[in-house]
Amino acid sequence: MRVTLDSTFGDFNYRGTNERGQTVHFSGSKQAVSAMETVLMACAACSAYDIESILKKMRQPFTKIKVTVDGKRADDIPAVFTEITLHYIIYGDVDQSKAKKAVDMSINQYCSVSQMIAKTAEIKYTYEIISE
Amino acid sequence: MRVTLDSTFGDFNYRGTNERGQTVHFSGSKQAVSAMETVLMACAACSAYDIESILKKMRQPFTKIKVTVDGKRADDIPAVFTEITLHYIIYGDVDQSKAKKAVDMSINQYCSVSQMIAKTAEIKYTYEIISE
Repeated sequence: MRVTLDSTFGDFNYRGTNERGQTVHFSGSKQAVSAMETVLMACAACSAYDIESILKKMRQPFTKIKVTVDGKRADDIPAVFTEITLHYIIYGDVDQSKAKKAVDMSINQYCSVSQMIAKTAEIKYTYEIISE
Repeated sequence: MRVTLDSTFGDFNYRGTNERGQTVHFSGSKQAVSAMETVLMACAACSAYDIESILKKMRQPFTKIKVTVDGKRADDIPAVFTEITLHYIIYGDVDQSKAKKAVDMSINQYCSVSQMIAKTAEIKYTYEIISE
């Protein structure tokens, strides 16, 4: 897997590009997402893919997934994440035990991003189901 | 630091949003960047901010920075990164030893993202200066 990063404009602004030419703009000066915010988003996305995939295999009728992620960072440099709290909201008439299993499997077995972050941060997670 | 993630369209597509409303689109089906690609980009961006900041403090006349990042992942699940190779290209009439110091300081001391990834992956890095 290869990506590239290039300076764009002004101070601390960069564009990341993957092998398909798809891009993300990063900013260390609040003009786009920050690198650390993007790691939290990637953790949520990686895990959401798993949960979506597992719930589909379980034939659970969900319509969408929402995740909120709070990250606490070390006071000293390097300011790595020390605690991450994920809250999953699964919309649809989904069985409670199956939702729990999908979330547990993602965080504890499948999700590459959370497994990397878990080396420096305590990972906490909760979930809720909103019936539709 | 808080971010949210929401389902967008079709299978495995999500939008991450930070507290300023800035967004990144993620896809597990190749319609946007993947979560793991974004972690590599975030590693490069986090480090590029450091290098830019350090070179400015050193009053080095660089014009732009480019980074290529190659990531190898574990064969088994969770497919965390096991090796990352960063190559920095610094454009400008920059002193070789100062460029080296900036890159070394970023990877070994400052960059939060690379410090987290370094818990599962060997981090290798090289740099070159292209005079302008």
